[in-house]
Amino acid sequence: MRDPGQIAVLGVTGYSGLELAQLLLRHPSAKSVVFYVRDTQGAKCLSELFPRFRGWGNAPVRKLVEEDVTESSAGTAFLATPHEFSAAIAPMLLEGGVRVVDLSAAFRFKSGETLTSWYKFPAHHDRWLAEAVYGLPELYASAASQNTLSEARLIANPGCYSTSVILALHPLAQAEWIAPGSSVVADCKSGASGAGKEPRKDLHFVEVDENFKAYNLFSHRHTPEILEHTGLLAEHLTFTTHLLPIARGILSTIYVSLSEKRTFEEVEALFRQCYAGRPMIRISAAGALPELQHVTHTNYCDLGFALDKSGRRLIIVSCLDNLGKGAAGQAVQNWNHMLGIEEQTALQ
Amino acid sequence: MRDPGQIAVLGVTGYSGLELAQLLLRHPSAKSVVFYVRDTQGAKCLSELFPRFRGWGNAPVRKLVEEDVTESSAGTAFLATPHEFSAAIAPMLLEGGVRVVDLSAAFRFKSGETLTSWYKFPAHHDRWLAEAVYGLPELYASAASQNTLSEARLIANPGCYSTSVILALHPLAQAEWIAPGSSVVADCKSGASGAGKEPRKDLHFVEVDENFKAYNLFSHRHTPEILEHTGLLAEHLTFTTHLLPIARGILSTIYVSLSEKRTFEEVEALFRQCYAGRPMIRISAAGALPELQHVTHTNYCDLGFALDKSGRRLIIVSCLDNLGKGAAGQAVQNWNHMLGIEEQTALQ
Amino acid sequence: MRDPGQIAVLGVTGYSGLELAQLLLRHPSAKSVVFYVRDTQGAKCLSELFPRFRGWGNAPVRKLVEEDVTESSAGTAFLATPHEFSAAIAPMLLEGGVRVVDLSAAFRFKSGETLTSWYKFPAHHDRWLAEAVYGLPELYASAASQNTLSEARLIANPGCYSTSVILALHPLAQAEWIAPGSSVVADCKSGASGAGKEPRKDLHFVEVDENFKAYNLFSHRHTPEILEHTGLLAEHLTFTTHLLPIARGILSTIYVSLSEKRTFEEVEALFRQCYAGRPMIRISAAGALPELQHVTHTNYCDLGFALDKSGRRLIIVSCLDNLGKGAAGQAVQNWNHMLGIEEQTALQ
Amino acid sequence: MRDPGQIAVLGVTGYSGLELAQLLLRHPSAKSVVFYVRDTQGAKCLSELFPRFRGWGNAPVRKLVEEDVTESSAGTAFLATPHEFSAAIAPMLLEGGVRVVDLSAAFRFKSGETLTSWYKFPAHHDRWLAEAVYGLPELYASAASQNTLSEARLIANPGCYSTSVILALHPLAQAEWIAPGSSVVADCKSGASGAGKEPRKDLHFVEVDENFKAYNLFSHRHTPEILEHTGLLAEHLTFTTHLLPIARGILSTIYVSLSEKRTFEEVEALFRQCYAGRPMIRISAAGALPELQHVTHTNYCDLGFALDKSGRRLIIVSCLDNLGKGAAGQAVQNWNHMLGIEEQTALQ
Repeated sequence: MRDPGQIAVLGVTGYSGLELAQLLLRHPSAKSVVFYVRDTQGAKCLSELFPRFRGWGNAPVRKLVEEDVTESSAGTAFLATPHEFSAAIAPMLLEGGVRVVDLSAAFRFKSGETLTSWYKFPAHHDRWLAEAVYGLPELYASAASQNTLSEARLIANPGCYSTSVILALHPLAQAEWIAPGSSVVADCKSGASGAGKEPRKDLHFVEVDENFKAYNLFSHRHTPEILEHTGLLAEHLTFTTHLLPIARGILSTIYVSLSEKRTFEEVEALFRQCYAGRPMIRISAAGALPELQHVTHTNYCDLGFALDKSGRRLIIVSCLDNLGKGAAGQAVQNWNHMLGIEEQTALQ
Repeated sequence: MRDPGQIAVLGVTGYSGLELAQLLLRHPSAKSVVFYVRDTQGAKCLSELFPRFRGWGNAPVRKLVEEDVTESSAGTAFLATPHEFSAAIAPMLLEGGVRVVDLSAAFRFKSGETLTSWYKFPAHHDRWLAEAVYGLPELYASAASQNTLSEARLIANPGCYSTSVILALHPLAQAEWIAPGSSVVADCKSGASGAGKEPRKDLHFVEVDENFKAYNLFSHRHTPEILEHTGLLAEHLTFTTHLLPIARGILSTIYVSLSEKRTFEEVEALFRQCYAGRPMIRISAAGALPELQHVTHTNYCDLGFALDKSGRRLIIVSCLDNLGKGAAGQAVQNWNHMLGIEEQTALQ
Repeated sequence: MRDPGQIAVLGVTGYSGLELAQLLLRHPSAKSVVFYVRDTQGAKCLSELFPRFRGWGNAPVRKLVEEDVTESSAGTAFLATPHEFSAAIAPMLLEGGVRVVDLSAAFRFKSGETLTSWYKFPAHHDRWLAEAVYGLPELYASAASQNTLSEARLIANPGCYSTSVILALHPLAQAEWIAPGSSVVADCKSGASGAGKEPRKDLHFVEVDENFKAYNLFSHRHTPEILEHTGLLAEHLTFTTHLLPIARGILSTIYVSLSEKRTFEEVEALFRQCYAGRPMIRISAAGALPELQHVTHTNYCDLGFALDKSGRRLIIVSCLDNLGKGAAGQAVQNWNHMLGIEEQTALQ
Repeated sequence: MRDPGQIAVLGVTGYSGLELAQLLLRHPSAKSVVFYVRDTQGAKCLSELFPRFRGWGNAPVRKLVEEDVTESSAGTAFLATPHEFSAAIAPMLLEGGVRVVDLSAAFRFKSGETLTSWYKFPAHHDRWLAEAVYGLPELYASAASQNTLSEARLIANPGCYSTSVILALHPLAQAEWIAPGSSVVADCKSGASGAGKEPRKDLHFVEVDENFKAYNLFSHRHTPEILEHTGLLAEHLTFTTHLLPIARGILSTIYVSLSEKRTFEEVEALFRQCYAGRPMIRISAAGALPELQHVTHTNYCDLGFALDKSGRRLIIVSCLDNLGKGAAGQAVQNWNHMLGIEEQTALQ
């Protein structure tokens, strides 16, 4: 029987992988952490690859060879790897008895068709799609759900934008407060680390600095996640993404028409009730709104509201760190559920 | 008869005033420019106040005494002053035969009540409200309009957000393409120079840097301008503003439901036709979207579109420089119309 | 006998105070932390004042009344207060048996004259100047020193620039490697949080963003600290400070003429030996240089070198976080020494 | 006889090339401008390649084929191309009667050996090295110099750092005020556009943002230019470069030991005298120091000073825009000299 405290992290070289390393190396349940990368660049330990880890993060780095991971003593594998690679290696690991937390989109959908049509790669892993649990603890960690995170062998960690939008809409969707047939607009803005670490013309410092732009209108790949977990129909959700000239953080401004006139207090109460006992969600009081500075370098998702005089038009402002609650932090939160320990462990 | 080429600029110490100085000092029709400020700090010329003008912007600076301006030879006064001050001094100047371009909100509304309810100061200047022309040349510079800019004695320069949103909605409103009763969402993001130059806790470098936030939800004072010049009803417009961690630029993402199914080509054609002969509006071709870097330090407003598969949900992206087309550049464009010269003069 | 684990933090509203709060609230030896501020703004707990603490930092906030602190059960007081205030309250606290870590300059010098001439306030607290220990653990925490940090009742936490420069020069000064009579140039660059949180024209976002400038040439108040702890004469040190358009971090580029020809290996060995057993100092290997990103949000000081072909001209690059090792982190490191616990506690 | 007002710009796709395009398209003596690029990406005109030129910069773009340029009617060619390419094509153009302003380093040195040893490519063009004029107008545009810029057929435009440091040291070097044998330290900081536009890991937005670092210590390729034009010996100059998290601008802090005690007024007078009649150099008055914001988007080089009480240690702060006076602006200034027109034309 493998020990889940023996950890393999695959693909530490992206920003999510680096954040994951920072969190796991400080996690009290992480008995050992080994980092696997495509190209070790001759490094034997993490601090040789990334100077910020010198002095405290001297965990071993190994060349990523699939067999080596399954043959190791790892009980948990975190995959911070491209979708295709995750889809290929996760089944091998699972069959070998390793539990998997995958940060890619490879296992986020129940249907392989969604994956194929949005991510353009053939899904040959339907069995695992069925088994995977979507790792949004605030929605799926309750005892009542059939496939609880604590029993999951395979957790599909959600997308960063998806987390931001779903957490904002979930209480309204669940309570059926959204006016039927109305249009929901999610206008989202993200820092540049969300676009990955590979050098690209449009991510060159000079191209992002003092700039701001929209991208992927009506076509962002996080759309199907949002639809699946809010129950909205595609024609009722307009989801837009923008690139902020900052390193990290997502702020989503979400516009909802309510089915009935509500007071601010009722809205606040709905959210507080829905997220009672969920410490990673912070609800703003009247008169205050979340802002990115409050959540960067944390695992919180902050939610605040504005309601117009008619009591029908609601704006939700949702803030999180795309590398925290939007990726690595949430992966650790999911792992905490897997281990059956306090979900905030190593996240405060 | 006063010569409009003799210019007085009142209140050069804010960011709009500084931008105005940069534009007017290079303007071929500006025969002389005198800058009036509340506190000269002992400076006799502009470059002593602002080192960036050394070597080329040695225009005189004088203490702002109301009588001195009217008694000077100035033919045009640009007011980059607070609303209350503009409201008080503009009538004096106008009665003395000085033409006025006011960058504040003091004369932007036909009704004094709007001013009183949104800006909290009593409007005692109804006669001038009636006479003032709203200085959005792309809407109001045509020969057909009764109160053309070229004959105006008093031009009320629009707000920065207002310009960005009105220019994006005007072609649709005019053509009655917006689905009646539908909700229009204008999600706007501005650089920090739009919030003024006075030191404030929330504008301290460390508070804005790497941060992003929404502000003044359902209550921004540019709302009534947008309503007045698009014809939208208050209950159908949701106008939201955010603070970007950059110095200048406004990007507005605007969500519209169309009354009929349209193609992208039809939308593009509508905008191109509406703004034909309007050189400061640039329409993006299919597949391209405006971004802030393309418009900062210019007087352009760039407009681009995305249309969903249904042909009913339209997103308009509108970009401009809040100090250019959103303030000082537009003021100069208005002045060019007053003078009857090419509207792009000194703006390219 | 007071318990040093009962903590009072005075003056939490500046950036150093906020950082201190973040560190102390996670410190295992901090049994209780009470925050005292001049103006509570009606807040009862820290998270009401600063939304970033919501959910985890609900420590009490009280109005700062001198007597209340001494009459409380506090065993340690951290002073993140102005120099004059620290000078006034520290003696009261010390006489009441409270141990003090002061982040201001009030107790940094042995001579009251230095304080008076550089900080322009009369020093009436010579007794305490004599007792105070300069809190640079890498220099003064060794068992051999008379006034060890562990026995100190009053620790004067060093300035941010001072820490950066002294740590870079100390090994060379101690080993007498600096060419006698030669000029040492310390060209230092700091993020804007080092200039404090009070709104100021020159710290407005638009004035710092995309800007860079030198300030306080030949007159920065951290000069006397550097002289005192490196043994350099004033005429041999040129210390220059610049404002970086970032929130946090100091990088100092320091130019030294060596008394004898040395190899890179010899320089590296000198530093490694001098700082052996000092975990908060990280020495870069040949071919690598420190950069700010590696140290922000940490308590490390990273040191790297370049030596010219002659082996006589040495450049030292010294990086730290001005709020970490340059202020709050170092204060906690000093407190760890006071408590006799591992100096890295709560700092990794 | 070719008309120098017919312009070919080779290599417009880097940041210097783009800045050059912006300047030349507004230049009154530029009768026509044709842009040649390696890869036209199907574009026929500049605004198709770069949206910021839409509406005003519709100059033709052609595929860069060497013969086409010489066979065109171009009278002047600006080369914003890599060193090797400039070295190869410039002789062809010159032999065809085209005057050349080269922004690369290919012709900056009198000796081919300097080029070979610092830039690692064989210099086969000694004849042209001899003929080339180093394009620093403030040093070499006087009537007295043998090889004046106005008669030059080939101008080697200086490096950005070189311009910043040479202009700061030239008056002192010329007047022999630098203490013989003393060490001059030039600590320079540049925005990221100076490092080029090609995507690179270390220029990714996230790697530069909120970061700061030194690079190329004792080995930067602008060193030989500085030595050649200040007369300093290599062992007396320490030239260091750093990467600022901004788009544009260079600030150099330069430390000089004076051979004799001087007053601030004497230093200021020396600089004012040396640069009398040189409008692109602005000397700061006592108590003021240049900062980057004052020079970005201009062709100025601002110089300011601090002198210690001894009157022997002088700090010069030198600011310019690396794309303006450091590259494209200076190229246009040089061209103005070639044409025999006012050197500020199109640069104010």
